[in-house]
Amino acid sequence: MKNQYNDLIPRLLQGETRAAARLISLAENDIKAAESIIKAIYKYTGNAYILGITGAPGSGKSTFISTLIDKLTGKENKIGIICVDPSSPLTGGALLGDRIRMKQHFSSDNVFIRSMANRGQLGGLSRATEDVIKILDAYGCNIIIVETVGVGQSEVDIFKSAHTVLVLLVPGLGDDIQTIKAGIMEITDIFVVNKMDLPGADKKIAEIIQMLELNMNYKYNSEDINENFSKTTQWTPEIIKTNSITGENFNKLLDKIEKHRKFLNNNNVLESYLKGRIKNETLQILKYKLTKKIENIFKENESIEKLVNQLMEKQISPYEMANLIILKFF
Amino acid sequence: MKNQYNDLIPRLLQGETRAAARLISLAENDIKAAESIIKAIYKYTGNAYILGITGAPGSGKSTFISTLIDKLTGKENKIGIICVDPSSPLTGGALLGDRIRMKQHFSSDNVFIRSMANRGQLGGLSRATEDVIKILDAYGCNIIIVETVGVGQSEVDIFKSAHTVLVLLVPGLGDDIQTIKAGIMEITDIFVVNKMDLPGADKKIAEIIQMLELNMNYKYNSEDINENFSKTTQWTPEIIKTNSITGENFNKLLDKIEKHRKFLNNNNVLESYLKGRIKNETLQILKYKLTKKIENIFKENESIEKLVNQLMEKQISPYEMANLIILKFF
Repeated sequence: MKNQYNDLIPRLLQGETRAAARLISLAENDIKAAESIIKAIYKYTGNAYILGITGAPGSGKSTFISTLIDKLTGKENKIGIICVDPSSPLTGGALLGDRIRMKQHFSSDNVFIRSMANRGQLGGLSRATEDVIKILDAYGCNIIIVETVGVGQSEVDIFKSAHTVLVLLVPGLGDDIQTIKAGIMEITDIFVVNKMDLPGADKKIAEIIQMLELNMNYKYNSEDINENFSKTTQWTPEIIKTNSITGENFNKLLDKIEKHRKFLNNNNVLESYLKGRIKNETLQILKYKLTKKIENIFKENESIEKLVNQLMEKQISPYEMANLIILKFF
Repeated sequence: MKNQYNDLIPRLLQGETRAAARLISLAENDIKAAESIIKAIYKYTGNAYILGITGAPGSGKSTFISTLIDKLTGKENKIGIICVDPSSPLTGGALLGDRIRMKQHFSSDNVFIRSMANRGQLGGLSRATEDVIKILDAYGCNIIIVETVGVGQSEVDIFKSAHTVLVLLVPGLGDDIQTIKAGIMEITDIFVVNKMDLPGADKKIAEIIQMLELNMNYKYNSEDINENFSKTTQWTPEIIKTNSITGENFNKLLDKIEKHRKFLNNNNVLESYLKGRIKNETLQILKYKLTKKIENIFKENESIEKLVNQLMEKQISPYEMANLIILKFF
């Protein structure tokens, strides 16, 4: 096994697509493989700019990303795209990736697309996504787009890695602001009102502004556990309307992304962001490892069965059982 | 503090509403309080039948639950309702609870409503929900309805406690099957096609059947981490159409719930379900406690800063950092 990686890694660093695909598969399927691979390539990472993109179902993410890539490949970038579906092994993720992949201009060597679906690994998807980001980074991608389907804590974890987070909303779709919840709102750098030709685009912008103000007030009054990892409170989220079919306003969008990139480079914001990102990655790995350990304890252990029986007879409560397990195994 | 619980708990067991509300608040805000309270009341729990209800935005959950409660209160039940919004401290949860609470018949002593929103506690919401279920159980509720907004791993964790899980879908809303992801599908006992008066109700039923077949095939081929906690593979999910405005088919729905209840009581299914539930609860508590511990290590520890700096200089990878932390602190 070691030899296999040793063979693949130089090929990855030379930009060989098949080596990238193979290493990603190895890392996805086995955390020990992931560990060895990341250890070997870590010093070659850190060069890619990471864009996180999410949006409610129906917000036109696929077309938006397709148009965005058109604009970016024109600038001789090497682009990695990771489509993450945290919710399902059956729907979404893989299909979405396939849908994008069919478009002809994505067969170019400058665009690498990978779909990831949650294969039951509780809390493991954001860890796995980190690994794929690093492999694509070492592979030579200077831009990596991470797309998720859009709700819940998993996406928030995934997007903690992104330099710039874009959230797509659409005019008229009343529920989409509710669907894209506060957790994501707080890490959004640019709001995109896509399908700007539909009626209500400006109303949607007003809704976003209103929600941002509400959010500011909330932040002010709360002690947020995520605060450690937030990039900065100094950035006021940008808002832009786009039409992904005609490409209208995409150059303006690229300007806004560039503005945010420059912002991160100034005032040591980038360093604190990188530190936050590294902490978050390590936290994800730790949670994953400890969760696996707990699950294995439950699967294989006879003394657990005894405790479960005591619980069934209500001699102890679940909290007491948890404490006993921590004492014994940690 | 101890005395405070000692005073409240007998009042809870006598069915005093204010004692229930106070104990829930104490348990929500402080895990140590939760631990003491659950320890004290644990032997008085296990009498309530727990219904989990979820559905895509727009599926009419509030009206559905309102109608369901109407039917149930007619049978002299004491009902607890827990509205859980895993995604946001700002939207959904609390508002939803308020919306329901406004309806006059819910002011009765036989219905207790509580909204819970995620206050940033990663993985902590399902634990907190368990605590509230137990308090309402000891308070004397014989039916407890747990409602969530409907997507993601958090709901799956929350619903592992439910005896019977209902998932609401609506005709025509093409995306709702995608929104209610496979993780939830696998723990659903009864599918409800709500708003049956809209065109396409039968098409939706066909979609559900198709997806169930797909799911069966998937299950057959995969080794699912959740398998430990699944109630049983012997139950074939029921499907029913309802109209929450007119109440059409709600009696049939109650029959189906009763059918599932009887199914659980037969063939030792209930015992294995209870064991699974207890294991899951303990697992949630363990994850919560260990996650808190990790977060505290990150917050307060100087040696972490040293490691972060080594990471920034790429002397070690995040995996190596995680291993060092496990060696040192666990």
